[in-house]
Amino acid sequence: MLAPEASTTLIARMGARARGAAGVLASAPDARRAEALRCAARALSKSSETILAANSIDVARGQDAGLSAAMLDRLRLDAARVKAIAAGVAAVADLVDPVGQVIDAATRPNGLELTRVRVPIGVIGIIYESRPNVTADAAALCVRAGNAVILRGGTEAIESNRAIHAALVDGLMQAGLPADAVQLVPTTDRAAVGAMLAADGLIDLIIPRGGKSLVARVQAEARVPVLAHLDGINHVFVHASADPEMARRIVLDAKMRRTGICGAMETLLIDRDFVDPAMLVEALQQAGCEVRGDPIEASIGEIVKPADPADWDTEYLDAICSVALVDGVDAALAHIARHGSGHTDAIVAADERVAEHFLARCDSAIVLWNASTQFADGAEFGLGAEIGIATGRLHARGPVALEGLTTYKWVGRGSGQVRG
Amino acid sequence: MLAPEASTTLIARMGARARGAAGVLASAPDARRAEALRCAARALSKSSETILAANSIDVARGQDAGLSAAMLDRLRLDAARVKAIAAGVAAVADLVDPVGQVIDAATRPNGLELTRVRVPIGVIGIIYESRPNVTADAAALCVRAGNAVILRGGTEAIESNRAIHAALVDGLMQAGLPADAVQLVPTTDRAAVGAMLAADGLIDLIIPRGGKSLVARVQAEARVPVLAHLDGINHVFVHASADPEMARRIVLDAKMRRTGICGAMETLLIDRDFVDPAMLVEALQQAGCEVRGDPIEASIGEIVKPADPADWDTEYLDAICSVALVDGVDAALAHIARHGSGHTDAIVAADERVAEHFLARCDSAIVLWNASTQFADGAEFGLGAEIGIATGRLHARGPVALEGLTTYKWVGRGSGQVRG
Repeated sequence: MLAPEASTTLIARMGARARGAAGVLASAPDARRAEALRCAARALSKSSETILAANSIDVARGQDAGLSAAMLDRLRLDAARVKAIAAGVAAVADLVDPVGQVIDAATRPNGLELTRVRVPIGVIGIIYESRPNVTADAAALCVRAGNAVILRGGTEAIESNRAIHAALVDGLMQAGLPADAVQLVPTTDRAAVGAMLAADGLIDLIIPRGGKSLVARVQAEARVPVLAHLDGINHVFVHASADPEMARRIVLDAKMRRTGICGAMETLLIDRDFVDPAMLVEALQQAGCEVRGDPIEASIGEIVKPADPADWDTEYLDAICSVALVDGVDAALAHIARHGSGHTDAIVAADERVAEHFLARCDSAIVLWNASTQFADGAEFGLGAEIGIATGRLHARGPVALEGLTTYKWVGRGSGQVRG
Repeated sequence: MLAPEASTTLIARMGARARGAAGVLASAPDARRAEALRCAARALSKSSETILAANSIDVARGQDAGLSAAMLDRLRLDAARVKAIAAGVAAVADLVDPVGQVIDAATRPNGLELTRVRVPIGVIGIIYESRPNVTADAAALCVRAGNAVILRGGTEAIESNRAIHAALVDGLMQAGLPADAVQLVPTTDRAAVGAMLAADGLIDLIIPRGGKSLVARVQAEARVPVLAHLDGINHVFVHASADPEMARRIVLDAKMRRTGICGAMETLLIDRDFVDPAMLVEALQQAGCEVRGDPIEASIGEIVKPADPADWDTEYLDAICSVALVDGVDAALAHIARHGSGHTDAIVAADERVAEHFLARCDSAIVLWNASTQFADGAEFGLGAEIGIATGRLHARGPVALEGLTTYKWVGRGSGQVRG
């Protein structure tokens, strides 16, 4: 294990090189950055065998180390997955370039022409776990938005990450961009993560990608700004005015389409005046979902087993759903304000006034009316690939794609104006 | 002095009340929030005598405590200053409401109507020093943008702040908005500042307003996101193509109009090929400015005394200027990248290509061509009053006014869409 000082020195050196590369990237023409990603995609395809060989070393080590089947699945690559990774990188090249976009412009009374222009953030640190595809996905989005990136993947994926990283660097260099624009922390030492979190001024933004304990550690320790997604405790509120069939379809999709994603519904709130609460619960149960409700909820034909108080604050990420009967939209909003995580919440209602009340009052990153919470996704929102879904309140909220990886500067063009 | 736990409990209680008030404020109609500020402005005018009496207690205590003349000046109010404070609050009422503005809208191929809408941030903490006017200025901007605010002013201004706060609360209540929307930390205990900085989840954003040591402490300790302005080490680069008379006017204004503001020029960079460097230096000296340059700069007719290496990293906030001769625009950009603080930097040039190169490559919050750095100001940018000038890279950069005190949420209106 490296001494903490060695990690600090390592990250400081990488940060300085990244800063230099960021300057080149920010002023490179859009076409050059896009070309680098297309070259990288081709390099990934070409090195598929090398990547798979490296990955098989990681997988073998992981098996020896007794990793769970789920972790091994996240770690394991095959030819199809490498192809998908390369296609993902190429797709990012096709996204619209945010850098240089004019957010607003005005000519001041004194003649000063003032514009606000999108620029890259600078140096972004990505801290992630066992999925090697993050190496390519995250790097592609950062580079497309003109940022240099420092990647720190999971120890268990280090060989795979090195092979993927080599292909990305190959692409950068083919396009005449600096290799330092995408750097992989070469050590699996945990102290390197601490050094990244402390690298205020060297790294402009940290994005953790992984499980709750990783994100919590990053949020607790970081001296660098963090863009993170913690929980997705999402609600669907079925109002009395909801069409029962629409409610059934949305509830089933929100919970059961994929139970392990952050946009999945975890709690179903049913208006006490809704015509058929039992139908919704039965539909979930028939789809293989365990349904839990508090004693009040036992009135739903006694088909719900009691919920523990902790259930209302639990992100199951599984075929489990908590259900509460509530007295109208304001009680639903109060439940969400108390137990929600500010990710995605939805109302099913025919009454437009009630729906608009919910959309205005529900203080989550994404609020939906008559649509499944599983739409919480950058691609579904038309943003292309996303780097994550942010549950904080500043800079970027909800799906974060290229625009969220930029900031802006003010550009003023004058003709000798002084304030006098 | 309160025990740290007592401070934590105090801030937790205030934070919970602020969260409740923020919900009411966010959903209050624009006219109600504006009306509250107009009522507050009238209440401030009406309580002018009470405020001045409270202020005279603070000033007397400050004199006894041996505060510097500069600190006493920042602390002292008179009838004209109270009038200006009230007028400032009324002016914020007239600003365009950012809440509810649609940033963008799209209908997805599946028919989901998606909009991104500006919403308040929530609960904002302001930590400031001896100027009592910040109590009113900061609260007005926060409330206008729909946020609740927790104010923690300087110990030396506590009586003045209480009197101003009472008038603000009076205005809120007259307009039917909750008093808890604007709360003043009742204790002068420094542990309360620590409790605010640690109040992750209770306070959404901390804005420090004051000197470098306050801002540095806030940035070092905060677990809550911070929007801050540290240094304004601003440069004016006079390119070889600059019109000498325009350069003279801009340099003089940038340095000498007001030397103590964060937008003041601190370092003058002169292109070695500029026709008359000595003229610029002499103009500054004749205006009463001390000019320092490194040994190379002694070539400017030997009218510059040597600079210490630390000079290039110094925010004088005084009639002192460092001057360096540089070899063209890229050398100027390199100097700024090394020594600048990312606040405001300007180029004076007739050559448009060189100027656009500078505007594109200079990585500061505000970059100007042929205009004085002293334009770095929210009002000059047409934003109305500003809460500060941010030198960080995320969320908001440069002058931060109402828009910077908001965030956004995604609102989707569907007709039963599921991802399936």
